[in-house]
Amino acid sequence: MSTLLDRIHSPADLKDLTPEQLEQLCKEIRSYIIRTVAQNGGHLASNLGTVELTVALHRVFGTPDDKIIWDVGHQAYTHKILTGRKDEFPTIRMQGGLSGFPNRQESEWDAFTAGHSSTSISAALGIAQARALKGKPGHVIAVIGDGALTGGMAYEGLNNAGRFGKNLIVILNDNKMSISRNVGAMARYLAHMRAKPGYLKVKSNVETVMNRIPLIGKPLWKAAHALKAVLRSLLYNSTLFEDMGFYYYGPFDGHDLPQLMQVLETAETIDHPLLIHVVTEKGKGYSFAEQNPGAFHGVSSFDVQTGKASAKKKENFSSVFGSALCSLAEDDNRICAITAAMKTGTGLEKFSERFPQRFFDTGIAEEHAVTFAGGLASQGMLPIFAVYSTFLQRGYDQLIHDVAIQRVKVVFGVDRAGIVGEDGETHQGVFDAAYFNTIPSVTVYSPCYFDELIKDLHRAFYETPGMVAVRYPRGGEPFRPADFLHSGDGWDCYGAQDAPVAIVTYGRLFAQACSAQRELKKQGIPVKIIKLDRIKPLPQDAVRAAACMKALFFFEEGMQQGGVGEHFESLLYETTDFHGQCRVHGIKNFVAHATIAQCLAELKLDADGMVQTITTEWEK
Amino acid sequence: MSTLLDRIHSPADLKDLTPEQLEQLCKEIRSYIIRTVAQNGGHLASNLGTVELTVALHRVFGTPDDKIIWDVGHQAYTHKILTGRKDEFPTIRMQGGLSGFPNRQESEWDAFTAGHSSTSISAALGIAQARALKGKPGHVIAVIGDGALTGGMAYEGLNNAGRFGKNLIVILNDNKMSISRNVGAMARYLAHMRAKPGYLKVKSNVETVMNRIPLIGKPLWKAAHALKAVLRSLLYNSTLFEDMGFYYYGPFDGHDLPQLMQVLETAETIDHPLLIHVVTEKGKGYSFAEQNPGAFHGVSSFDVQTGKASAKKKENFSSVFGSALCSLAEDDNRICAITAAMKTGTGLEKFSERFPQRFFDTGIAEEHAVTFAGGLASQGMLPIFAVYSTFLQRGYDQLIHDVAIQRVKVVFGVDRAGIVGEDGETHQGVFDAAYFNTIPSVTVYSPCYFDELIKDLHRAFYETPGMVAVRYPRGGEPFRPADFLHSGDGWDCYGAQDAPVAIVTYGRLFAQACSAQRELKKQGIPVKIIKLDRIKPLPQDAVRAAACMKALFFFEEGMQQGGVGEHFESLLYETTDFHGQCRVHGIKNFVAHATIAQCLAELKLDADGMVQTITTEWEK
Repeated sequence: MSTLLDRIHSPADLKDLTPEQLEQLCKEIRSYIIRTVAQNGGHLASNLGTVELTVALHRVFGTPDDKIIWDVGHQAYTHKILTGRKDEFPTIRMQGGLSGFPNRQESEWDAFTAGHSSTSISAALGIAQARALKGKPGHVIAVIGDGALTGGMAYEGLNNAGRFGKNLIVILNDNKMSISRNVGAMARYLAHMRAKPGYLKVKSNVETVMNRIPLIGKPLWKAAHALKAVLRSLLYNSTLFEDMGFYYYGPFDGHDLPQLMQVLETAETIDHPLLIHVVTEKGKGYSFAEQNPGAFHGVSSFDVQTGKASAKKKENFSSVFGSALCSLAEDDNRICAITAAMKTGTGLEKFSERFPQRFFDTGIAEEHAVTFAGGLASQGMLPIFAVYSTFLQRGYDQLIHDVAIQRVKVVFGVDRAGIVGEDGETHQGVFDAAYFNTIPSVTVYSPCYFDELIKDLHRAFYETPGMVAVRYPRGGEPFRPADFLHSGDGWDCYGAQDAPVAIVTYGRLFAQACSAQRELKKQGIPVKIIKLDRIKPLPQDAVRAAACMKALFFFEEGMQQGGVGEHFESLLYETTDFHGQCRVHGIKNFVAHATIAQCLAELKLDADGMVQTITTEWEK
Repeated sequence: MSTLLDRIHSPADLKDLTPEQLEQLCKEIRSYIIRTVAQNGGHLASNLGTVELTVALHRVFGTPDDKIIWDVGHQAYTHKILTGRKDEFPTIRMQGGLSGFPNRQESEWDAFTAGHSSTSISAALGIAQARALKGKPGHVIAVIGDGALTGGMAYEGLNNAGRFGKNLIVILNDNKMSISRNVGAMARYLAHMRAKPGYLKVKSNVETVMNRIPLIGKPLWKAAHALKAVLRSLLYNSTLFEDMGFYYYGPFDGHDLPQLMQVLETAETIDHPLLIHVVTEKGKGYSFAEQNPGAFHGVSSFDVQTGKASAKKKENFSSVFGSALCSLAEDDNRICAITAAMKTGTGLEKFSERFPQRFFDTGIAEEHAVTFAGGLASQGMLPIFAVYSTFLQRGYDQLIHDVAIQRVKVVFGVDRAGIVGEDGETHQGVFDAAYFNTIPSVTVYSPCYFDELIKDLHRAFYETPGMVAVRYPRGGEPFRPADFLHSGDGWDCYGAQDAPVAIVTYGRLFAQACSAQRELKKQGIPVKIIKLDRIKPLPQDAVRAAACMKALFFFEEGMQQGGVGEHFESLLYETTDFHGQCRVHGIKNFVAHATIAQCLAELKLDADGMVQTITTEWEK
């Protein structure tokens, strides 16, 4: 069946469509997105919310000369479909396929790579400023969600962009919730603004009247100006954004395509920073997602007819973390849990229900969350901030300045540590082990199994002084050898005692090491595994045990330079009489999207890679 | 001569003083601060601005049970003087003496250690929340400057604190400029608010009238509510902070002690988050500082009578950087310079005058600054962000996400890299080399001399692909041996070719190594120096040259764990046939305030320390 979508090869093809055809196109795009995400997994609800907005943007503006910067980037599927990537769209998030996020390397239409929140206004201002300096015409449009607006960086961007002398358009895509329920004053403020019915009509009438007020003489002008300001404030209650230097327009229905196009056409003509407030519905057009947008934010593959996930949800590190934390908090009312808009993702739902007084969702505000935890801890509370490894990067300065230097006990539940897979290079949790390395007196645990995670959490609160991070991977428990038992203090040793070669590793890679060990045994190479649970400070006994080996291969699911392996190697050569061979293998570059298994294979950090490395590099 | 100040041993002693005595006390404190800073150097203008405010706070509230959190902390001298540290005050910023910033380890009155900007509201909310959970009474007060309010983290704090159900007081200490001239919409907004004369009187009258409007029946109530909101907005124009959930009061004269005390007494009774806007003058009471508060922000010792610096200002790395950048920008109109409120400190004054179109001061907003640079670079501009090492920590996520992943060329002029001395542990630039280590495909140069800095800047823009950091120390050029000439590509070798021992180092420590070399020669130990200019990626030739040595001592003015030395050591053992001895000596803990020379000595990173380390550790 031939469709309208078949005829769209680039945004230019939108220009000829009638209003009815554009509406039809939106339906087709929606259906295409639902079918594809049902297959591949991905961000569904946010992408269904921006279909009309994206069509309107590409219809009105002249991309790629005009630039659209998608904040976070989890709402850009329609954008990808319209900008020459329709046919590749079914490869989204797959190895070698399209990225799930805007990516400068992928298309000239992707003006700025994204993945983390609240960066779009700053990037857009940089782009707009560069064009102004070069005398290049054209528009720059940042599309930012209400969730991303809780991030301080968005405010820094607004504060700087508001005094930019030219047209820069910020579209506030207000879907009335960020990933978790939106929180804070900004959310309340937006809710208040949305509640103004008949807003637009009144506005246009009043503007007409106001513009007719004669401005004769300075005193009268002043009075008129003051009156206008008051009327504007009364009608639009838009002073927050106007105080930041923007003209504010809205709110508009983000699914009313004709109106959106009209608004954008007007916006195109105004030579001043604009904030256009658009209200959209997450999950729009797919009833299951409309009813439960939270569950359909980031999904694995599902059945389109029933909305049910293809695979049953298994226990994972996040859920085990959440349960363990509830047990601890039951017995100790000093324990508080903090999330930055990731209650569900980090497994804190139960905690939030059982201990609402001690649960804090800061919005997408990792910097505040870390320092807030420091404040709680300074008064003897026991706060834990549960956060994805990649997002904690944003709190690096606060980890140093507001926790480590304060000498307080804050625990970090660092979720999604290591490779996360399909979300790709902006989201891989491959930096935390290395950046924690740089911070004095932090203890870091990196469990491989659920029972270890539970034990490490207990240790973090009660047996380890100061700041502690417990980092654990995305997903479920990896393979566990039947005869493996934890024994050591911060490390374990597994396998033939007389082996000449040892694999040293930590976290999830231990399971890969076990498979490699079996394979190498078959090949006549007995291998011992030194498994680190505490990766900072490194257990001296583990280093000493390693020193007895002829050859050591350190495998690390994190950045190699500045990582745990290099420090282990340094201790080995400097504090023992080791004279054998040591090779560290970690990650050296950004890691593109693919399944976790594919990523590990590509990085030669899976069992096959370990076997290959050892058989090739071992200098017997 | 007996003074009032002699009688003040703790804030409790303020309670008995008459209003006149309190005014007299403020004078005495001011004079004490001026004399001490003239001797020791330190932050003068900001501390002279908060004398009355601090006296009022300690007079009204019951510290240390009530908590005061000083944002940035460069305005807390009066606080230190009043809280039992009067006699030690002349030791401020000296080794073993008082810290120049609030420090939890120093006094129970210092509720939260500070040094970096915009953290106080988050910390205060944590403290207030902890007290609420514990059922503890008392007030928590964050004092934050208008400059710090340009940082996004302050907004995250406001956004979260505005919905806190209890009394939390934020005092906006508005001194009409941050460290450099304040910028952005927030600055304009505050200027607008300050311009309202007779504000307080009108306000109190109107409030009285408004509170008498009878609220009978819902429709009438609604109308009255709307009317109130409009009147409030008209009169106070305070909606920005009120939109964030705060009650706003102000602006008040921050040097009118009786009024301040009255305001704080009222504030004490209100059970809701408050923002109190206080207008102060930087440098108040010392004419030279009043006239030039920028120059008297952070000063070295000076003559009280003349206001002139004791030592003549010498050429330093910042000024050389600024001049070199002007030369480059003269020939290349793609070059843009960015500062985060540190125009003077980073040597960009000349640039800002000569190239105003290409100069951007973002306010204290390092996150925005990094991403803004990424945006400029994406359009082919050549942006450089000049920033102190310690403050760039706040942009770590953006370095990864908005520069490295974008594959764009942004240059970072990382000033104050390494030990900064008297500003102490919050300010030492000892993390950047290690955190740059963790980021793929970044090139890092660490010059030791002015001519190297100039050469490295040129390389950074024109010879090195992608993201580049050029890091250089605080202050002037260190000792340079007469016979030393740069020769290599990213590294140099200096000294006896047949020496068995080499010192490997980078940046300023090369000068220390030269002295150590001379001393060791006297002791009969010939030493070669391998001087790295490019510390990432490490020059392979330098590693190969090191491999020929019997013993290597790597000295690093930065964090050892995750640092350059460990990576060098790893390359040495993994990529060469080195079988000698290698020892890495870097920094392992936070470094307290003292002179740079004292810090280096304490860390055994000066010439004496190097000699001692080598003679003790070298296993001949």
